[in-house]
Order: sequence, then C-alpha cells, then structure tokens
Amino acid sequence: MPQTATTNRRYVLVQHTQPDQEPTPAVWKLENAPVPKPGPNQMLLRTLWLSLDPYMRVRLNEDDSYMPSVKKGEVMVGGTVSRVEVSNHPDYKAGDLVHSYAGWQDYIVSDGSDIIVKLPDGFREQSWYLGALGMPGFTAWHALVNIGKPKSGETFVTAAATGAVGQVIGQLAKLRGCRVVGIAGGKSKCDYAVKELGFDACVDHRASDFPAQLKAACPKGIDIYMENVGGPVFDAVEPLLNLFARIPICGLISHYSGGGLDGRDRLPGFMANTLFKRFTIQGFIIFDAYPEFYGTFLKEATPLAESGQMRIREHRLEGLESAPAGLCDLLHGGNFGKVVVKVAD
Amino acid sequence: MPQTATTNRRYVLVQHTQPDQEPTPAVWKLENAPVPKPGPNQMLLRTLWLSLDPYMRVRLNEDDSYMPSVKKGEVMVGGTVSRVEVSNHPDYKAGDLVHSYAGWQDYIVSDGSDIIVKLPDGFREQSWYLGALGMPGFTAWHALVNIGKPKSGETFVTAAATGAVGQVIGQLAKLRGCRVVGIAGGKSKCDYAVKELGFDACVDHRASDFPAQLKAACPKGIDIYMENVGGPVFDAVEPLLNLFARIPICGLISHYSGGGLDGRDRLPGFMANTLFKRFTIQGFIIFDAYPEFYGTFLKEATPLAESGQMRIREHRLEGLESAPAGLCDLLHGGNFGKVVVKVAD
Repeated sequence: MPQTATTNRRYVLVQHTQPDQEPTPAVWKLENAPVPKPGPNQMLLRTLWLSLDPYMRVRLNEDDSYMPSVKKGEVMVGGTVSRVEVSNHPDYKAGDLVHSYAGWQDYIVSDGSDIIVKLPDGFREQSWYLGALGMPGFTAWHALVNIGKPKSGETFVTAAATGAVGQVIGQLAKLRGCRVVGIAGGKSKCDYAVKELGFDACVDHRASDFPAQLKAACPKGIDIYMENVGGPVFDAVEPLLNLFARIPICGLISHYSGGGLDGRDRLPGFMANTLFKRFTIQGFIIFDAYPEFYGTFLKEATPLAESGQMRIREHRLEGLESAPAGLCDLLHGGNFGKVVVKVAD
Repeated sequence: MPQTATTNRRYVLVQHTQPDQEPTPAVWKLENAPVPKPGPNQMLLRTLWLSLDPYMRVRLNEDDSYMPSVKKGEVMVGGTVSRVEVSNHPDYKAGDLVHSYAGWQDYIVSDGSDIIVKLPDGFREQSWYLGALGMPGFTAWHALVNIGKPKSGETFVTAAATGAVGQVIGQLAKLRGCRVVGIAGGKSKCDYAVKELGFDACVDHRASDFPAQLKAACPKGIDIYMENVGGPVFDAVEPLLNLFARIPICGLISHYSGGGLDGRDRLPGFMANTLFKRFTIQGFIIFDAYPEFYGTFLKEATPLAESGQMRIREHRLEGLESAPAGLCDLLHGGNFGKVVVKVAD
C-alpha cells in the first residue's frame, strides 16, 4: 500500500530482541492510524525518506543502553527527510523539506524541536541528508576530525568501507593526505572502495588470510582506526596499531558478543598495548556532538557532495514496507552503500 | 660501603626477569669501577639521590617494550639528583645540583643532554625532584590536566593513593574542586590519604567487600579514573564509570598478567561500555610530555610544594645498596610514599 493523505501507516515494536540475537521482521507490526492534526505552533510532517542505520539494533533490546530502548507498542525510531504538509509554526511553511526523526511512519506532528536541519531549496538529493550530510556523514567527520586528528602521510583504516560512515570518512581522510585502507565484505565492495571512492587499498575481511592482507596493505602500520564493527576485524587491526594511534569507537555492529574468540581474556593485553603504545580510544555517540559541530561539518561536506567531489553510494529500498527486512539485512552486511527507504515522493 | 671519591659503585643487570614473574635482588650485581673522567664540554655528576619507580619493572624484561630493556651487563636505569663535581661545560659549574638519569651508580659523565632540570639554589628538599616535582608528580599533573580535564564537582579516583603519583594527583584534583577518592592497600595508607592528603575518602582494596565500599565512596559514580594498577581494582572501578569518563593510563603495576579473573574475555564488554558511555581512554608515557609541559607543571607544583600546601610523603632508603631490595618491595606495594634512596650527602 502506498502512502495516502488519510492514513498514517506506522511500524510499532511488538517484541524485543535478546542482546545476543538478531532481529527478524516479525518484531515489528504495521498499523494504520489516523493522520494526526497539528495544533497551534505545530506542523504536520509527511515522511519522504526513512533512514536505516546500525544504531537501531541496540534500540531493540529490552533494556536501555546509551539511549532508551523502543518500548513495545511504540513507533520504531528513525531519521527521516520529511515535507511540511501543514504549518502553524512561524518558522516553517508548507512545502519546506526538513531532516527530522519522525520514525517508521508516514506522518508526525512536530513543534520544530525535533528538526535537525531545514534542507536548502532545490538541493540535488534529499536523501543525502540521511547519509553523507546527515548522521552517518557527521559521525565520519566528527570521528576523523575531532578524535582521529589526522596528519598528512598517516595511515587511516576503516571497516565497513562502503557503508554509510565508511565511504565518507575514507574520502575525508584522503582529502587530508592520509593513506586510506578500507575493510569490507566481498570483492565488489572492495573494488568499489578503491576504484570509485579512491581508497588506496581495501581488504576483504572474509578472506582466509585477512590479517596478512591487512598487514600488507598497511606497510607503515595504522595511525587511526575507525572502530565500527568490533570482533575479529579488531583482532587483526590491533597488532598493526602504531605508537600514538587514535581509535574513535562509534559502533560495534558485531556486538562483541559472548566469550571471545578462543577463551582468552583480551582486556589485559589491550590495556597494556594502550599504555605502551599510547593509544587514545574514545567512544562517542554522535547525537552529543550536534550542537557544537553539525554546522561546521555541513560547511565542509555540502559543497563536496553538491559538486560530486565526494562520491556517495546509496542502497535504496522502495516503500515503507521494506524497512523491517531492510534493517535485518543491513545488520548482516547485506547492504552496499547507505540504506535509505523511499517512502513517498 | 659508602660513596667515595675514587670508586664508582654501580649495579649492573645480570639476569632478565620473565614478564609474568617478579624480580629478586639477585638480578643485579654490584660492581666497582673507576670514576670516569669528563672530556671537553662534559662534566662529572655525583649521585646524591636515586629514584625507585614502578616503570623500572618493564625495563627488566628481556624484550623491549615502549622503551628498550636494560641489557645484561648494563648499569640499571634510574632518575637521580646529582651534584656537578667537575665541569668543563659552559652551562654548569661545580656544586650545581641537577635532576638527571644517572642510573644506579655513584658517578656518570654528562654532556648536559641528559639533564632534566637544574635545581633552584637552596631548594628545601632535593629529593622532591624525584617525586612530587619530578617524573611522578609530572605524570600526575599531565594525566589530570591534559587527559582527565577535571571539572569542579566531578569525582576523581586514583589507585595507589599514597604512592608517588597518587598522592600528588589526588591533591591536585582536590585543588580543582573534585571529590577525591583514593584506593590503597591497608588501613594506615587509607587513613593517611584522608587525614594528611585531604582526600574525601580512601578505600582498602584488600577488603573483602572492596567493590561495595568503593561504590559507597562514589555516590555520583566516577568521572576520572587514574589507571595505574590494572587487575581487580579496575574491575571494581569499571561499573562505576560515568558517561564521558576519562581514563588516563599511566601504569599497570599488576601487569594485567595472564588469563583474566574467571576465564571471561572482558574486552568486548569494555569496548561496548566505552562506546555506550563515551569513555576516553588514553595511554601515555610521561617522557613524551616533557618538552611541551614540564615547565608549566613546575610553575604550578613548585610553590605548592615549597609552601607546604601540597603534602609530600617519601619512603626513604639509605645507601645505594638498598636499591635492589627497595625496588622489589615497591613492586609489591611495600612502600608507603615515594621511594627514594639517599646515596650520598
């Protein structure tokens, strides 16, 4: 069923997911509700694009983590590009495009406090505000600039190289003179990273000799490692880290679940390495950084995107109904590029 | 045998120590050698005070770590306060007192490049340049100011509270308005931290309910944890760390050796915590920071020490011959205060 003017289709959570399990599309249920009506100083937003992102996984747990979990019966959270349909708000008029967090639904009433940014008139690709110019792109920029602090000639490594964050951070690191090495799953992603995104090398983490390949791709070691996957990839990265390496941690898509790879406790060795090699490890949640840095980021990234100097690859899904399977697929690395759902024109 | 003008007593390493073992005094041998003669632009330094410090442990391993290990037959390394006996160097004259790294011996020839700082004339306690005003004090200041970045009202925790670093960092954190909680081994050290150093609380890590006591002492959690011991102490600290906690790592005296406490791999949980709670973990080796910050540190710490506002507790040993047993004792926490050896007047 496509979007209509009279019904608010929405996905609500019906079941939490255990921390060590993967969600299935059955954890959400599609409901039809009336379109809500905006009151004074409010407006009605209509969802055009919905973003699917790895951070959504932890919101499906029953227990809160760094953010509250989605409760049963609540609409699933998500970033959106929306159009103002009706406005009683002095700062917005009907037809304005905004980036907000309307969630997995067609309509939401907003008082403006949820609006991240108003899109510039006539911007060439609305959906980029969910990717390269939105949360993932901002994550890339913040991790690189404020934590990674790259110097020309250093070696920068990112996993999930063609993902929403990886594709942007690699290109930004390249612009700063780094040797950029990606890690991705499969030959086509690795080829894309090198040929289209301009990475110096990209290594397939599924290869049986992945650690050796990574080492060969980083002849001068690794100065900055963007940690967004965890697990065995990190095990291959750690021995290559140079003195004074910086490790921004923005995600752990593999969840670091369970009891290690071989029963060893890897914390002691990691802490000793952190001391001896003077690592800086910094976890961050990008939502904290918006007030101070989002504007600075847009100033750099918008012209790069608009001019085509920054390559942007999206993995586009059609229709709100594709969101549940689309997110499950993303969590397995089934996407190739930033996942966005086209909900309506 | 006391120091003489004709013999250079020196301790050379005769045996390396395995990483998972403790050294014994038998790993060094006392030798008598002639007093060396300074050439043009050189000077002869005579050791008055020798510093014993935890970092010396890793220098006893056979393999290099963040610094080269001491090789068999080499004089054991160590910070000293020395007097210039003979000077052919334009910047120093006989009688000058300097802080250097002459090692475990009576005499050394210096070209000046090894001098950390010249002591001010008539300074009240020369040996403080090995402790509160030397490497340990500077370690405390750098960890607190440049990594910990304390804000008034935050909770600061340090292990080894009455040790060379702990006593200084706690007092500096207190001056910056933090709630300061120490961790130490035994009642007398804990009492000293509270009554003499002015800590708000100090918890005995040997107590059977140590984790519960630590939690009670930190009702608002922990914002900055000075990691200098590792092991079970860190396990009690980790669950108390607040959002945006900072963890400078300057030492791991317990070596984090072996396979964890209960066979669990603690790295995944720690990394997830680092992400969710936005920790900043930074390993550092203080020797890197001297060029940029040692002067700034001395400007703050010297008047605090000189005026008595900063309390300084030393654990003084007499005679060069007390160094081997003194270091072994220090590595077991047998000291109470900064360990210095008085080698000569």
